[in-house]
Amino acid sequence: MRNLKIILAYDGSAFHGWQFQTATRTVQETVEKCLQDILGHEVRVTASGRTDAGVHALGQVVNFRTSSRIPAHGLLRALNSMFPPDLSAREVREVPLDFHARYLALSKKYVYVSDTSSILSPFLSRYVMHLPGGLDIRAMGQAARALKGRHDFSSFMGSGSSVKTTIREIFDFEVFGKGSRVFFCIRGSGFLRHMVRNIVGTLIPVGQGEMASRDVESILALRDRTQAGPTAPPQGLYLVEVEYGGHGRSDMDTHRRQEGQP
Amino acid sequence: MRNLKIILAYDGSAFHGWQFQTATRTVQETVEKCLQDILGHEVRVTASGRTDAGVHALGQVVNFRTSSRIPAHGLLRALNSMFPPDLSAREVREVPLDFHARYLALSKKYVYVSDTSSILSPFLSRYVMHLPGGLDIRAMGQAARALKGRHDFSSFMGSGSSVKTTIREIFDFEVFGKGSRVFFCIRGSGFLRHMVRNIVGTLIPVGQGEMASRDVESILALRDRTQAGPTAPPQGLYLVEVEYGGHGRSDMDTHRRQEGQP
Repeated sequence: MRNLKIILAYDGSAFHGWQFQTATRTVQETVEKCLQDILGHEVRVTASGRTDAGVHALGQVVNFRTSSRIPAHGLLRALNSMFPPDLSAREVREVPLDFHARYLALSKKYVYVSDTSSILSPFLSRYVMHLPGGLDIRAMGQAARALKGRHDFSSFMGSGSSVKTTIREIFDFEVFGKGSRVFFCIRGSGFLRHMVRNIVGTLIPVGQGEMASRDVESILALRDRTQAGPTAPPQGLYLVEVEYGGHGRSDMDTHRRQEGQP
Repeated sequence: MRNLKIILAYDGSAFHGWQFQTATRTVQETVEKCLQDILGHEVRVTASGRTDAGVHALGQVVNFRTSSRIPAHGLLRALNSMFPPDLSAREVREVPLDFHARYLALSKKYVYVSDTSSILSPFLSRYVMHLPGGLDIRAMGQAARALKGRHDFSSFMGSGSSVKTTIREIFDFEVFGKGSRVFFCIRGSGFLRHMVRNIVGTLIPVGQGEMASRDVESILALRDRTQAGPTAPPQGLYLVEVEYGGHGRSDMDTHRRQEGQP
């Protein structure tokens, strides 16, 4: 039995999120279907976590078990020849049997992209949140710093989720502008449902001068979802990278793409 | 009566090209419908030329006549609030009554984009032609230079078009690489049906070493469509800019977007 890890990139626009649902197109279903066709046996993949409908990924990580002897580079090629155009495998790697894409994730990095152009380019509507007008990057950066560290993030948790603990740790959180774009780069131990989008939706009013930076700290302390801002739309969100410890770095049999970046 | 010029940008992926067709979604139909809703009278717009299904535009130019007194900036705002996300108006300008978007175009600039990454990013499948493997930029540039100037371009004309003359002039034609991308930038007096895509489809085998640069000159001289390469797919093609002479540069009442680029 072997354990294989795949790094996936996908344009989330036309997927109903990661998780398998009957009768809708999801990333999980698409990946499992292609793996089954290639390997000839049923496959259930484990992802680092779900992504919502419309959310994109540059570095989603999954693993699955197989008795197949297919080499990693052969599987990488086969997957990319079968995948639809909005999904690609960036890397396939054999990992130790105890590697688990969800349980062993040490951190996840997300980037949220918004565009402040008065008129949004028609090429960007599925890829950024459009926020015409200026945003005070410094004020949002200040608010972002207050969220760093280990906290109870109940105020930023989407409804309808059941978790053992609402405590998470944010390791890094930078807000910066480039041209007409504003990037929110956040790396943490893990995120509650809608947490990144709820945090961004709370920072926006700060950037628009409608709320003070320090109010975000108070909202965090209140542990009350109704106090935070609205959920930012999914199309601006990208799961960029999932980090693991020693596990998953095995070089037993690795093949990754050589050129370009998604 | 006033004559208004609009510069449009669109993601061609979900349009069946420019030209009005019953029961399909085209750019012309979408623009005319929105103009009619805003102005309250029937509108027929004239474009610099058609674009095929899947072809994109950063600077398509159209004009139309109206008795409405709506200011240019008001129309720009109204259009962008009504347009679907894959279409935007970049500029609205009042021009002299004799301005005509098609007849008075002095040149058009197209860019064709291909990507040579071994695995194409899932975010690019609608926006570039995927050509894994290297391309000899210098050889393609040499072939491109042979096409510059005034020639009979019958060899590169798509079938099913009736034109008075197949003579066109190419003013500039550059081929350059940047990272994993290859850009074909061509500016000419006008282009026959599928001409840019047929030229790119003929240069590709030169870049792949399957044909000599000088063969492209021979193909041009033969005036025979069957001698040239296949039509490159539409998704890599962008209508970038249409140039006019003194006409259309009037500043009677102009409003253009201030930030960002599509």
